[in-house]
Amino acid sequence: MEGGKELGNWPLNYSFQVLWGDIDALNHVNHTVFLKWIETARMNYFSDCGIMELLETDQKGPILASLKIDYLKPVLFPDSVNIRTTITRIGNSSFDMGYRVSSTSNGDVIVAEATVVGVMVNYQTGRPTEIPKSIRERIIEIEGYSTQ
Amino acid sequence: MEGGKELGNWPLNYSFQVLWGDIDALNHVNHTVFLKWIETARMNYFSDCGIMELLETDQKGPILASLKIDYLKPVLFPDSVNIRTTITRIGNSSFDMGYRVSSTSNGDVIVAEATVVGVMVNYQTGRPTEIPKSIRERIIEIEGYSTQ
Amino acid sequence: MEGGKELGNWPLNYSFQVLWGDIDALNHVNHTVFLKWIETARMNYFSDCGIMELLETDQKGPILASLKIDYLKPVLFPDSVNIRTTITRIGNSSFDMGYRVSSTSNGDVIVAEATVVGVMVNYQTGRPTEIPKSIRERIIEIEGYSTQ
Amino acid sequence: MEGGKELGNWPLNYSFQVLWGDIDALNHVNHTVFLKWIETARMNYFSDCGIMELLETDQKGPILASLKIDYLKPVLFPDSVNIRTTITRIGNSSFDMGYRVSSTSNGDVIVAEATVVGVMVNYQTGRPTEIPKSIRERIIEIEGYSTQ
Repeated sequence: MEGGKELGNWPLNYSFQVLWGDIDALNHVNHTVFLKWIETARMNYFSDCGIMELLETDQKGPILASLKIDYLKPVLFPDSVNIRTTITRIGNSSFDMGYRVSSTSNGDVIVAEATVVGVMVNYQTGRPTEIPKSIRERIIEIEGYSTQ
Repeated sequence: MEGGKELGNWPLNYSFQVLWGDIDALNHVNHTVFLKWIETARMNYFSDCGIMELLETDQKGPILASLKIDYLKPVLFPDSVNIRTTITRIGNSSFDMGYRVSSTSNGDVIVAEATVVGVMVNYQTGRPTEIPKSIRERIIEIEGYSTQ
Repeated sequence: MEGGKELGNWPLNYSFQVLWGDIDALNHVNHTVFLKWIETARMNYFSDCGIMELLETDQKGPILASLKIDYLKPVLFPDSVNIRTTITRIGNSSFDMGYRVSSTSNGDVIVAEATVVGVMVNYQTGRPTEIPKSIRERIIEIEGYSTQ
Repeated sequence: MEGGKELGNWPLNYSFQVLWGDIDALNHVNHTVFLKWIETARMNYFSDCGIMELLETDQKGPILASLKIDYLKPVLFPDSVNIRTTITRIGNSSFDMGYRVSSTSNGDVIVAEATVVGVMVNYQTGRPTEIPKSIRERIIEIEGYSTQ
């Protein structure tokens, strides 16, 4: 992984209800649903730091390059989950995000942990492009660090 | 539609967050997601009135025979929805349920209305079977009517 | 239902594999998955008759106003399904579509039947608008009728 | 990763149609859909090697411990995909699987690559348990190696 500023203060938390249809034939939440929750947490973070606006103004935006997830415990219905999220590193054009999924009915115990690598891409060329300074500063601020 | 006791007091309400991935290529919540919310509301109602326990004790349970839904307004992300639900009729082996989907960001305005016909089925024979008296009475009570 | 030209020759058929994750806790394909197959059949029909191009050229397009579906038999995994589709009526701005879902493993027996009301809408005003003559003629042709 | 027999001949291939509803607001197939295709390929492999029968006879079965996926290119609608799959390692109680997702409309070019760690678990104790010899031999056979 390329270098970049180390962060990772887990500033954001989102809660979602488990839907009955999230349960699969093995009687627990299907493994892909965890990634839908995580995706929503990611989009909320993107919204908070202004990334989504770049799409309209600059035809730039983040793409999901890779993800890794460890499933620790099953989630059942009914339940709700907390998705805690953080950006752990900002590189030149890429960044790493972390996610912790916890189950409310289970005393908020962590049931899955995931990491994602995102890349800022110019949608016209399809090529990686630098993460704008304003976004970088906003992320550092959200993570609770000083940008000085 | 066969006869049966008329009910319909809309006693239950459940709230769900819109997930980012619920949005489709037309930039609003995909029409099938409304039915996932409604399904969860239905299962919660079933849980409340004791139907789900029949599955284990009597090998009986409700099946979804048909549904009808009118889509009135699109739902966007981010938003949350309320799903209000009621049983409007209990027949011998079938029952009718109603659902109203409303959007929080939109002043709780109704965005979709649905009705469902459920049938109580014996899972061993696959045939319709009478709705047990205890379930019937519990539903009448949830709907706020006297069972006397 | 408003009047309009009666059609309904079931000209199109699409096949889809059941995915393992389509199965829910009741061990059959979740009821919302039928509507995803049907939606894809609808979009394919729209593509065939040129409706999707109106979106780009005229800012017009069809919206789903309502749907009704009867579930006749469960679908299991593994299996594949056929989705047969037809437009049964073209009105001034609305149209009716029919769908038959059948299960391959089950001798192509019909497992669900659905009808949908679509409305042609001007996306700028949000109001119903006339179905263009070229689309109307293309639909009549697909359904195997003469446009003379 | 613990040791074990090295395999990995990519013996199996499954094809799926992209559904219209698989497309998200970014106009390509949502990243979670890749994992639904992969899951189905995994279940088909499990079926082929007899793992699924252990569930009924021995109350043992595989669980998904972790997954990693790299997204290389977007998939659009309409399209179909091939999911090639292999078991690359069988350990005592765990095993590694590989997946290659390719797009038919794109000359079968690889659009995503994934690896999964599965663990054989005793569902009564929730603890890892040895992969039975019969399963091990069947997997080696499917992968095209001699079990002598």
